[in-house]
Amino acid sequence: MALPTTPTITAFERSPDRGRGLARDMRVRWALEEVGQPYEVRLVSFAAMKEPAHRVLHPFGQIPTYEEGDLALFESGAIVFHIAERHQGLLPDDANARARAIAWMFAALNTVEPPIIDRSMAVLFERDKPWYADRLPALEDSVHVRLGELSSRLGNADWLDGAFSAGDLLMVTVLRRAAVSGLLEKYPNLSAYVARGEARPAYQRAFDAQLVVFTGKP
Amino acid sequence: MALPTTPTITAFERSPDRGRGLARDMRVRWALEEVGQPYEVRLVSFAAMKEPAHRVLHPFGQIPTYEEGDLALFESGAIVFHIAERHQGLLPDDANARARAIAWMFAALNTVEPPIIDRSMAVLFERDKPWYADRLPALEDSVHVRLGELSSRLGNADWLDGAFSAGDLLMVTVLRRAAVSGLLEKYPNLSAYVARGEARPAYQRAFDAQLVVFTGKP
Repeated sequence: MALPTTPTITAFERSPDRGRGLARDMRVRWALEEVGQPYEVRLVSFAAMKEPAHRVLHPFGQIPTYEEGDLALFESGAIVFHIAERHQGLLPDDANARARAIAWMFAALNTVEPPIIDRSMAVLFERDKPWYADRLPALEDSVHVRLGELSSRLGNADWLDGAFSAGDLLMVTVLRRAAVSGLLEKYPNLSAYVARGEARPAYQRAFDAQLVVFTGKP
Repeated sequence: MALPTTPTITAFERSPDRGRGLARDMRVRWALEEVGQPYEVRLVSFAAMKEPAHRVLHPFGQIPTYEEGDLALFESGAIVFHIAERHQGLLPDDANARARAIAWMFAALNTVEPPIIDRSMAVLFERDKPWYADRLPALEDSVHVRLGELSSRLGNADWLDGAFSAGDLLMVTVLRRAAVSGLLEKYPNLSAYVARGEARPAYQRAFDAQLVVFTGKP
């Protein structure tokens, strides 16, 4: 019998968010902590991410990647799904509830995240452009459309569909990027939802582990 | 024993693409055709999509949705995955190959699609803005970064990772939006990849079915 393989993930050598846990390795770390799977981390510089050796693992030259035995994966959503499928705790056993949790995974990454990223990118890279002041309100409106819809659906539930799932894990990480910009202030239930995610012991272990990369101090 | 339930999907009553198959129901139709699963379609107006009755099915007021017995799903990626998981033909049997195909599903929707959508949205909604001419080149550069990386990875293979999978299905639908804008012309292998997808009998049946909604003529 083969010994179980400890998976190795990649993360930024110097995260542009200065350890606030907004980089996409945070999702994978959190999922691994939720299921109690130890892991190793290989840090990658911005230059190395674009080199052929890394592109074999990640065709788009990004982090995170995931290596486990002879399996290599990329895309944080796919890696979280892989972890969720192989361990208890991140997807419901009931088939319909499981399918709905997976729908929330896709919704987090494909419907809620894009307008949040678009707004962040404009703030980072278009602040000195003559059109910045004119475009920003429309970008924020697009974020608020999605946040309003999400807030309505969540209501006063703890999680999006029954128990905490990989869908919540991804959604909380997506919303944190909106939260650091103050965009969640209008939505007390979404702020509480994010706080509920951040209060999970597995989240805290993952957060601390990614912070140490930046501070150098455990 | 319960009789098998024919799933019902939703689609635009009047598709903004005039039947070019760029709306997200196309993905779901194609997946259902690939696995030979009959389905029914309920057309939804733009007004009805935002009403509570539809939002019960889709919190973000969009199409497609998927109803099958007491299961209701939203998000095209999640629906395609649900179909792929329950039928043969869209995901490999080998566990590692299956995980990689799922990674391509997430990559199509979360890494390749966003810059293509951003560019389409600017062309649609910012064409009369004073900044349009200045922003468009940067938007197209972002698309080309991803297309170049994808083209390098695909090389001269037929599909992204071995046999045709749900990852290819989603990627081809994502690339078609770039193709109609001429953005694939620099990438003969991506153009051939899209053509290979479009040539599949299941694709053609799905395309014809969505076109009839627009033309009214079978």
